[in-house]
Amino acid sequence: MKRLNRTAVSLVVGCMGFAASAVWAADSLQDVLKERGLSQQDLLAAAKTYVPTGKRDEYVAFSSGGQSGQVIVYAIPSMRILKYIGVFTPEPWQGYGFDESSKKVLAGGKIDGKDITWGDTHHPAISETNGEYDGQFLFINDKANPRLAVIDLRDFETKQIVVNPIFKSEHGGAFVTTNSEYVIEAAQYAAPLENKKFYPLEEFNEKYRGGITYWKFDRKEGRIDTAKSFSLELPPYSQDLSDAGKLASEGWSFTNSFCSERYVGGIEKGRPPYEAGCSAKDTDYMHVINWKKAAELVAAGKAKKINGHDVLMMETAIKEGILFLIPEPKSPHGVDVTPDGKNIIVAGKLDTHVSVYSFEKIQAAIKAGKFESKDPYGIPVIAMKDAIATQVSLGLGPLHTQYDSKPCIAYTSLYVDSQVAKWNYCEGKVLDKLSVHYNIGHLMTMEGDSTKPAGKYLVALNKLAIDRFVPVGPLHPQNHQLIDISGDKMQLLYDMPLPLGEPHYVVAIDAKKLKPAVRYKVGTDSRTDQPHPGATKAGEERTVKKGNKVEVFGTLIRSHITPETIEVEVGDDVTINLTNLERAQDETHGFTVSTFNVHASVEPGKTVAVKFKADKEGVYPYYCTEFCSALHLEMQGYLLVKPKGWKPTKTGGLAAQNYTEADYKATLKKVADTQAIIDSVVAYITSVNYKDFPEVVAMVDDAFDQLGKTKDIKVKHEAAFAKKDWENANLWAEQVWQYQVKTADLGLRAKTFLEQNGAKKVK
Amino acid sequence: MKRLNRTAVSLVVGCMGFAASAVWAADSLQDVLKERGLSQQDLLAAAKTYVPTGKRDEYVAFSSGGQSGQVIVYAIPSMRILKYIGVFTPEPWQGYGFDESSKKVLAGGKIDGKDITWGDTHHPAISETNGEYDGQFLFINDKANPRLAVIDLRDFETKQIVVNPIFKSEHGGAFVTTNSEYVIEAAQYAAPLENKKFYPLEEFNEKYRGGITYWKFDRKEGRIDTAKSFSLELPPYSQDLSDAGKLASEGWSFTNSFCSERYVGGIEKGRPPYEAGCSAKDTDYMHVINWKKAAELVAAGKAKKINGHDVLMMETAIKEGILFLIPEPKSPHGVDVTPDGKNIIVAGKLDTHVSVYSFEKIQAAIKAGKFESKDPYGIPVIAMKDAIATQVSLGLGPLHTQYDSKPCIAYTSLYVDSQVAKWNYCEGKVLDKLSVHYNIGHLMTMEGDSTKPAGKYLVALNKLAIDRFVPVGPLHPQNHQLIDISGDKMQLLYDMPLPLGEPHYVVAIDAKKLKPAVRYKVGTDSRTDQPHPGATKAGEERTVKKGNKVEVFGTLIRSHITPETIEVEVGDDVTINLTNLERAQDETHGFTVSTFNVHASVEPGKTVAVKFKADKEGVYPYYCTEFCSALHLEMQGYLLVKPKGWKPTKTGGLAAQNYTEADYKATLKKVADTQAIIDSVVAYITSVNYKDFPEVVAMVDDAFDQLGKTKDIKVKHEAAFAKKDWENANLWAEQVWQYQVKTADLGLRAKTFLEQNGAKKVK
Repeated sequence: MKRLNRTAVSLVVGCMGFAASAVWAADSLQDVLKERGLSQQDLLAAAKTYVPTGKRDEYVAFSSGGQSGQVIVYAIPSMRILKYIGVFTPEPWQGYGFDESSKKVLAGGKIDGKDITWGDTHHPAISETNGEYDGQFLFINDKANPRLAVIDLRDFETKQIVVNPIFKSEHGGAFVTTNSEYVIEAAQYAAPLENKKFYPLEEFNEKYRGGITYWKFDRKEGRIDTAKSFSLELPPYSQDLSDAGKLASEGWSFTNSFCSERYVGGIEKGRPPYEAGCSAKDTDYMHVINWKKAAELVAAGKAKKINGHDVLMMETAIKEGILFLIPEPKSPHGVDVTPDGKNIIVAGKLDTHVSVYSFEKIQAAIKAGKFESKDPYGIPVIAMKDAIATQVSLGLGPLHTQYDSKPCIAYTSLYVDSQVAKWNYCEGKVLDKLSVHYNIGHLMTMEGDSTKPAGKYLVALNKLAIDRFVPVGPLHPQNHQLIDISGDKMQLLYDMPLPLGEPHYVVAIDAKKLKPAVRYKVGTDSRTDQPHPGATKAGEERTVKKGNKVEVFGTLIRSHITPETIEVEVGDDVTINLTNLERAQDETHGFTVSTFNVHASVEPGKTVAVKFKADKEGVYPYYCTEFCSALHLEMQGYLLVKPKGWKPTKTGGLAAQNYTEADYKATLKKVADTQAIIDSVVAYITSVNYKDFPEVVAMVDDAFDQLGKTKDIKVKHEAAFAKKDWENANLWAEQVWQYQVKTADLGLRAKTFLEQNGAKKVK
Repeated sequence: MKRLNRTAVSLVVGCMGFAASAVWAADSLQDVLKERGLSQQDLLAAAKTYVPTGKRDEYVAFSSGGQSGQVIVYAIPSMRILKYIGVFTPEPWQGYGFDESSKKVLAGGKIDGKDITWGDTHHPAISETNGEYDGQFLFINDKANPRLAVIDLRDFETKQIVVNPIFKSEHGGAFVTTNSEYVIEAAQYAAPLENKKFYPLEEFNEKYRGGITYWKFDRKEGRIDTAKSFSLELPPYSQDLSDAGKLASEGWSFTNSFCSERYVGGIEKGRPPYEAGCSAKDTDYMHVINWKKAAELVAAGKAKKINGHDVLMMETAIKEGILFLIPEPKSPHGVDVTPDGKNIIVAGKLDTHVSVYSFEKIQAAIKAGKFESKDPYGIPVIAMKDAIATQVSLGLGPLHTQYDSKPCIAYTSLYVDSQVAKWNYCEGKVLDKLSVHYNIGHLMTMEGDSTKPAGKYLVALNKLAIDRFVPVGPLHPQNHQLIDISGDKMQLLYDMPLPLGEPHYVVAIDAKKLKPAVRYKVGTDSRTDQPHPGATKAGEERTVKKGNKVEVFGTLIRSHITPETIEVEVGDDVTINLTNLERAQDETHGFTVSTFNVHASVEPGKTVAVKFKADKEGVYPYYCTEFCSALHLEMQGYLLVKPKGWKPTKTGGLAAQNYTEADYKATLKKVADTQAIIDSVVAYITSVNYKDFPEVVAMVDDAFDQLGKTKDIKVKHEAAFAKKDWENANLWAEQVWQYQVKTADLGLRAKTFLEQNGAKKVK
């Protein structure tokens, strides 16, 4: 068949003439609307949320991944999910929990010496500078196994997990102070603070405690400093959400509670259940805490060590005047400080009001020593009337409040009414209501937790989806609804299913504030941000055997793994270090060894180690798990696990294909032809203003990187040719062609980009 | 403060007058387009993909989750992700790997006795009936640890994982035969077939083997029948993708290969790498197999047992005339049988052609015994010219082909060109090309693998995203692009980031063909589809202790867990069985016990068991992890792990709140007022044609379910009242109110729905 006797090159030519034109059919917009049953309002919503190819979203949202244990990153207004970040649960795509460095991060979250392989994430918080989101770090809690994680937004990787030393659960975290000095985490279900200590429920009031932990964040290190962190002992009221004071209320923090009835259920013994006893009274308590002074007291040695951790006991906090309570309406959830820090808005879930507390009034009461009573633990209680600015009736089940860029404007979720209420907290006036589907938990406006909310969009975090989406079995996705809040009336724009986990809270930041890296400095351990001891340069790859320990120092580059063979004996401990030598954006390689339960994601510049015991004889292929190039499937190798003391019986080399001089010459011709194509692409690219397109400059750099590799290889095939070693001559020449194909791939992508983006001829 | 002295009820009234109106601001569409920089073409694309709230998508796509080990379910044309299904990797949201039943499914995937906690999923396949997708089951492979999983689309849960008994890797699975008799899985990297058997690479040609496994699927059981499954031994060519014959080619299957050079790399020893040696020749081999006859041969006892599994050896296959090879162009990926089964289209990655093979010609050559040669293993090789219908030059890097609903129309991905080519395989003509961003791997049309492709949409699975989305660190999402193929010219509609895992292949089915359940029969073990031995009815909850084994038979319902206290001694083995008593759609409850690393997702009707050793003294809260109702946070309890032999020292009961008769009377008043509200909502609902709205009927049913529960509780508070037990009287009355709140919640949701959906007054 004659047409098979071609080199790919000649066909590159054939293809280049075929313009990649995106000719649009002459659809009438009206026809599409009619056919798809869309209204004019639907079209407007579509226009407000659609982000065309090549353009980017305005905001990036970080959502708790609920029981998935992860963080979900999505884009606004398109509501497209950009990433699930592995946090508390091992996640193989990212190699998280499958390579040695990330295993150490997860090991930081061990409790009582045991691995916890999931988390119930609730409240993400972005690091702040002067009360504004700075886009540097993200914090998130685990309610089930009280822990806190730190994610670095330079690479969107989890760097640290710390275990709360005194709690058994914690819902109210993470919340940051205005310069991220501390990350606040409040207990939920009371328990004895001493670890592994049992007290019967009959001693609930005396021995069970709540509390708040202030985790000290070391911004320079990008890690929590556990030694400088401390907690406050609190009564066994179920502490719930918190918020840090800001501007006017700087240095204070606020934490609400439910079940301040201290009711203990026991439906199995005929007692009314928790739900009845925990919501019997009309008010619970907001905790008002002077955390700045608390930190000073701890520094002054006034804390008690519990489980090796500094705990400021209630007695001390009361004596030193840093802890107060104020009644707040029935089983509240959100406690939200206004952007100016002057007010604290509490939503009582089983009440219909939101209550606006005045920080000024609270301070006046404290200064005047004006308390209506003490709670059973001796904490002074400020009368609600002495603390409150106003109350506004919004509807059934107010849950959480967020702020607009416009002064005095707030949005509160109404769980039972399944609505969002827009209202003015200065004038105490309801402005608008919008029905959502269905029961809404938290809501979130752009940068709505900060001192400078951005307005524009609001997301309603509905806790049920029911019939919103094509059904996918008894377990439904959640539904986050995007709402336009730029006008007087709220407009529902988009329904977004959440495919994994049940998010509790979300924070969103202006996308321009995020400046993540696209590569690491070569040889970086991404989990420590330090040089990786297993890092290897090109040409220095090696396998070192000491006793029964085998350590490989390898590299990855399009499209081969060095080494391609790893030989060990049964029972050897094997460590494989791999450095990705790529510089190009998105040129990630993955790595696994068949059936040994290891996996690494190795982004450009990263070094990763995987480790396992070669406890079974056999032949185990390894390969690159990311589709990295046309020759991706050939990016492979073999781990050979030999019986102990095995000696080769066959002395011959590997099978050869009997290549001839003609094969070599044919390959050389293909190489020359391909070079001509590359030259013509280069000629086109340099004939236009490609330097004005950073994307293209990066591709051109990468293309020349690839082409640059052919030099050394050329020496090899010519040397083999000189020795009439046709196999090596031909195959090294083939290798030159492989690099040319990668070069052409990049060049063609660059050319298409330039053509589509209006590149102009230059001199 | 007078305004605090309210019952929630009076405020329900206040809210009801406030209409939940979605008044739209008078945005001009033109202003929005201008502000957001959208073209008319963008608007058309937006209109073609936007799915407004309350409406549903047309198609459902099942995507491999790549190295995440999961399956991704997304909707077309909105490209919203509906669910990640836990398959090879434990996933806590779904309780997958954290409850006992799902642990057993994962344990089915153990290799050499060890847990494998991830997978590299590649090719999903939907079960077929007469070659058409039937929407009943989904199959997916794990390349790294050769395994196959079965997902039941009634509940979107993984039911079974089977381990390939002879391979060390497998890329080319899953592909189903036309009635899902078999699921095809082909090896990739050759290795000795005997388990844990080492042979040196010098014996590659003699001792390393590829192969194909035909897993027998028992549709009635919904499981693979491993005893009736078999494999075919093949040469150590890297077998790649497969496809089953259909209609004209029923009973046959086709598998391509790369590296038929049998090249063994060793760059670390100075040898050219695999990428050079594996792509040196211009052709590889397509394997043509008569699987129907192979199955008969196995049934007739002609297979050899390897690792306890039936393997039809090459020698037998050759002798019996069921195995043939045909040269195919350079390192192909996709092998795709046309909808009528008459042709097989192969895309050679390093070639520019797609090759259309004729099944009729192949059969004619076989019948005539017309072979051009034998391969080194004696397999007859049919000449390409005797098998091929036509070849069409499409461009650089053709990879995979899918079919349109229109006859003879195919779409092929071009990896190096980053394009999709639309062409006519009958006339051998290129019809259109569209540039995608960037390198495209597989592509997929609606039901494009079946005998009846649906056309309409095509998805391009781009392997790199580079600069498409807001950057999220060095590890980028993939980019699936939606393309409209309904017209003559392809139109790019949407860029969709994939947030977790690197998908390899996707299949899409008409959403109407999926009929998943919204609840289980009460007491079902969802992983076995059998009644769960731990199932419990309401009122029969109990804790059973035998020696050091404690077994709890509990229930879950809005908003309490029964029991609310579990008492054990240190060292006890604890099993907690939980049945979700809800009937309402989407009323899932979750369950965890602090720090014991268990989690269950319990959808309506499901029974789940979690198990752990209570190996540490202490107090461990447990709670519902799904935000299921307004009182969700109060859905809690305590696991008390007592020291061995602990005896209570305090004899008193639990702390009481000193409730009075006045409290009870106030609660009764609140209950009466709330009932009046419920009555008014009911009056509204029954005044309109609510029965015409199935969603509302379901809500009304659920509401009356909730209200119905108050009867028994009323008896309790009245009995307590009679005994002047004010605490119990008040709290049971509060419990009545809790059920009323749930009733009102549902009633208000129903009312809003009716108002928004044009309910009409009835007599």
